[in-house]
Amino acid sequence: MTSKKKIVVLPGDYIGPEIMAAGLAVLAAATQGTDFKYELIECRFGGAGIDQVGQPLPEETIRTAQQADAILLSAIGGPKWDQAPIRPEAGLLSIRSALNLFANIRPTQVSSAQIERSPLKAENITGTDFVIVRELTSGAYFGKPRRLDHDEAVDTMYYSRTEIERVMSVGFQMAQKRKQHVTVVDKSNVLATSKLWRQIGKEFSERYPDVQVDYRYVDAMSMAIIAQPAQFDVVITPNLFGDILSDEAAQITGSIGQIQSMSIGANGPNLYEPIHGSAPDIAGKGIANPLSMVNTVAMMMTQSFNENQITTKIQAAVDYVIAHKIVTPDMGGDQTTASVTKALVDFIREEN
Amino acid sequence: MTSKKKIVVLPGDYIGPEIMAAGLAVLAAATQGTDFKYELIECRFGGAGIDQVGQPLPEETIRTAQQADAILLSAIGGPKWDQAPIRPEAGLLSIRSALNLFANIRPTQVSSAQIERSPLKAENITGTDFVIVRELTSGAYFGKPRRLDHDEAVDTMYYSRTEIERVMSVGFQMAQKRKQHVTVVDKSNVLATSKLWRQIGKEFSERYPDVQVDYRYVDAMSMAIIAQPAQFDVVITPNLFGDILSDEAAQITGSIGQIQSMSIGANGPNLYEPIHGSAPDIAGKGIANPLSMVNTVAMMMTQSFNENQITTKIQAAVDYVIAHKIVTPDMGGDQTTASVTKALVDFIREEN
Ligand SMILES: CC(C)[C@H](C(=O)O)[C@@H](O)C(=O)O
Ligand SMILES: CC(C)[C@H](C(=O)O)[C@@H](O)C(=O)O
Repeated sequence: MTSKKKIVVLPGDYIGPEIMAAGLAVLAAATQGTDFKYELIECRFGGAGIDQVGQPLPEETIRTAQQADAILLSAIGGPKWDQAPIRPEAGLLSIRSALNLFANIRPTQVSSAQIERSPLKAENITGTDFVIVRELTSGAYFGKPRRLDHDEAVDTMYYSRTEIERVMSVGFQMAQKRKQHVTVVDKSNVLATSKLWRQIGKEFSERYPDVQVDYRYVDAMSMAIIAQPAQFDVVITPNLFGDILSDEAAQITGSIGQIQSMSIGANGPNLYEPIHGSAPDIAGKGIANPLSMVNTVAMMMTQSFNENQITTKIQAAVDYVIAHKIVTPDMGGDQTTASVTKALVDFIREEN
Repeated sequence: MTSKKKIVVLPGDYIGPEIMAAGLAVLAAATQGTDFKYELIECRFGGAGIDQVGQPLPEETIRTAQQADAILLSAIGGPKWDQAPIRPEAGLLSIRSALNLFANIRPTQVSSAQIERSPLKAENITGTDFVIVRELTSGAYFGKPRRLDHDEAVDTMYYSRTEIERVMSVGFQMAQKRKQHVTVVDKSNVLATSKLWRQIGKEFSERYPDVQVDYRYVDAMSMAIIAQPAQFDVVITPNLFGDILSDEAAQITGSIGQIQSMSIGANGPNLYEPIHGSAPDIAGKGIANPLSMVNTVAMMMTQSFNENQITTKIQAAVDYVIAHKIVTPDMGGDQTTASVTKALVDFIREEN
C-alpha cells in the first residue's frame, strides 16, 4: 500500500476559500476508489495569516509546507490589508524563497471551444499552445541592495549562472517533450543580466541540438504575444519580464478564470495555484469560477504524483461543463461556483 | 523675418533613409509658401555612424544635435552589425543621455478607418486614445553598478525623486489638456524604486486635483492594455516598463508602420522618431510605409515649432491616402513608399 500523500492547503483570501473548496471537492471525487490516498493540511497564509498571527507566512506554515508532497494555494491579498504594515503579497515572495520555488510554469492555451471569449480575433490566436517558464526566486525581485529613501530608491537585478542554468534546464527539457522549440526572452541590448541570460541560452542551444532556439527582446516579445502567439512553444524568461508577459499571455486567451500554474521547488514540494487574484469584487457572491482551481488540482496530480488517469478524469469533467455551458458569469454563463462544482463532481462520479 | 530653424536629420539604417526621404518631401511640400523656414543638417548615427567613423553616436553628431531646434531620427540597427563590438542601438542610449531626453511620448490611437487592421476585436478597442509617457534616461537602463562576469551579472535600477518628478510633471500637464486622467504604472508591491514612483504619483495627484489618478501594477497593466485600452488617457511609467508596454500598446492598434514618438529634451531640442525598427527584411524594396515618418514630422511641427496649421495640412494628407487606400502592403495596400509619398505631396500642393 502506498503511503498517504501530504497536501498542504492554503485557502487564501476573498474568493480564495470559495474556489479552494471547489477544487478539493473535485479532488475527492476524482480520487475516490483509486489507490491515491492523501491527507489535507490547511495552513495560514496571506491576509488570513496576517489576521490570525500577524504574518502572511507564519513559521509554522513554512515548516509544514517543507514537509509536504505538494502545496495547493488559492489566491491571496485584497483591499482589507491595503494599510497593513506587511502586505499579504509579501507572503508570496517569502514562500517562493523559503521553498526555493525557482521556476514558475504557466500554460497558455486557446481551445476552439473558447476562442470566441478572447479579446483577439480568432484568426490571430488559433493554435496557440505555449508554456511560459519564469525564473521565480532571483532577478529584480530579490537582488540586494534594495533601498528606499525620501529622495531616491534602488533595486538590484542580480542573476548567477547557476540560477539561470537551472531554469533553462527546466525549459529545454520541457521543449523536448513538446514541440522542440524554445524562445529565450531578455533585454540583452541593454541589461548585463540579460546578456548573461542570452549567453547561457546559447550554451543550452548547443547542448540540446534537437531543440530549435530563438531569442527575443522583451519589448518585441510583448508584441509577438499579441501578433503571432501560435508560433511559441516554451518561453523562458527572467522573473520580472515573466511577471509581465505571463499576465499578458493569459489575457489573450480570454480565460483568466481557468488557468493553473505550477512553481517548481528546487529541493522540496511544488506549489500549484490559479494565476488570477483574489477578486474582492465578487467575493462572497458565490459566482467565482472554480475551473482555475480545478485545473490547478489536475496539474498537481500529474506533475507531483504522476496520476495521469486522475488528471484525465478531471479534464474530461472540465471539458464537459464548458461544452454544456455550465459555467460562471465570467465565462458568459449563469451558473454559481457551487453548481459548476456539482456538475463536475456528478460527471466524475458517473464516469467512474 | 523669423530665423531658419535647424533640424538635425539622422537617416539611420536599412529602411531608415527611405522613409526619411519621404518625411522630408512632405515637410518641404507642407511648409512651402509659409513663413516657416528651416535648414536640414544630416548627421551620422547608428549603423551608419559605425560604418563611417566607428561610433554609433560620433562626437560631431552630439555637438550638432545640441545646437539644433529639433532632431528627426528614422530607424537604426540591423543584422549587419550583429557582430560589431559596439551595436547601433548603443547610440540610442547615448543620445538619450547626451541630450537629456528624459521623457518619451507615444500616442496610441485607434481610428475607425483602421480599426479592422488590429489583431483585436473592434469592440475591444473602439475609442482607444491614450499617450504613454515613459521615463527615458534613468531606471534599469542607466543605473550603476552594471557588471557582467562569466558566473554572474548585475544591473541596477535607480531613480531619484527629481527624475521621477520631472516625468510626472510632463504627464500630469498633458492630462490637463486631454481627458484629465493619469494612470501611474509601477511594481510597488515588489520594487523599492516603484514604491518611490507611486509615492510621488500620490503627491502629484494632490497637486493636480483636477486630474483623476489611478495606479496599476505593470503586470495588471499589460492585461488592461489588451482588455480595456479605451479607459486610459495618460500613462506614466518607468523606463523599462515603458519599453515593454509601449510596444504592446502599439501592437494593439495594428498600425505600427504609422506611429510617431517624441522624446523631450530637458535642456535642449526634442527628438522625433517613428516607433518601429529598421525593417531589414524589406529594406531596398521600396515598400516601407512612409506614414510613420510623415506623422513624426507632423508631431515635430506642433511640438517643437507650434506650427499647428502645417501639422493639420500633413494630417489631412495622411487621412486622405488612408481613406483612398493609397497605402503600402503592411496596411493592406499595393503602393510603394514613393507612390504614397507622391500622393501625400500632391494632396498638400492641391490644397495650398
Ligand atoms: C503579487 C506579486 C508579488 C506577484 C509577482 O509579481 O510575482 C504576482 O504578480 C505573480 O505573478 O505571482
Ligand atoms: C533599441 C532599444 C535599446 C530601445 C529601448 O529599449 O529603449 C528600443 O526598444 C526603444 O524602445 O526605443
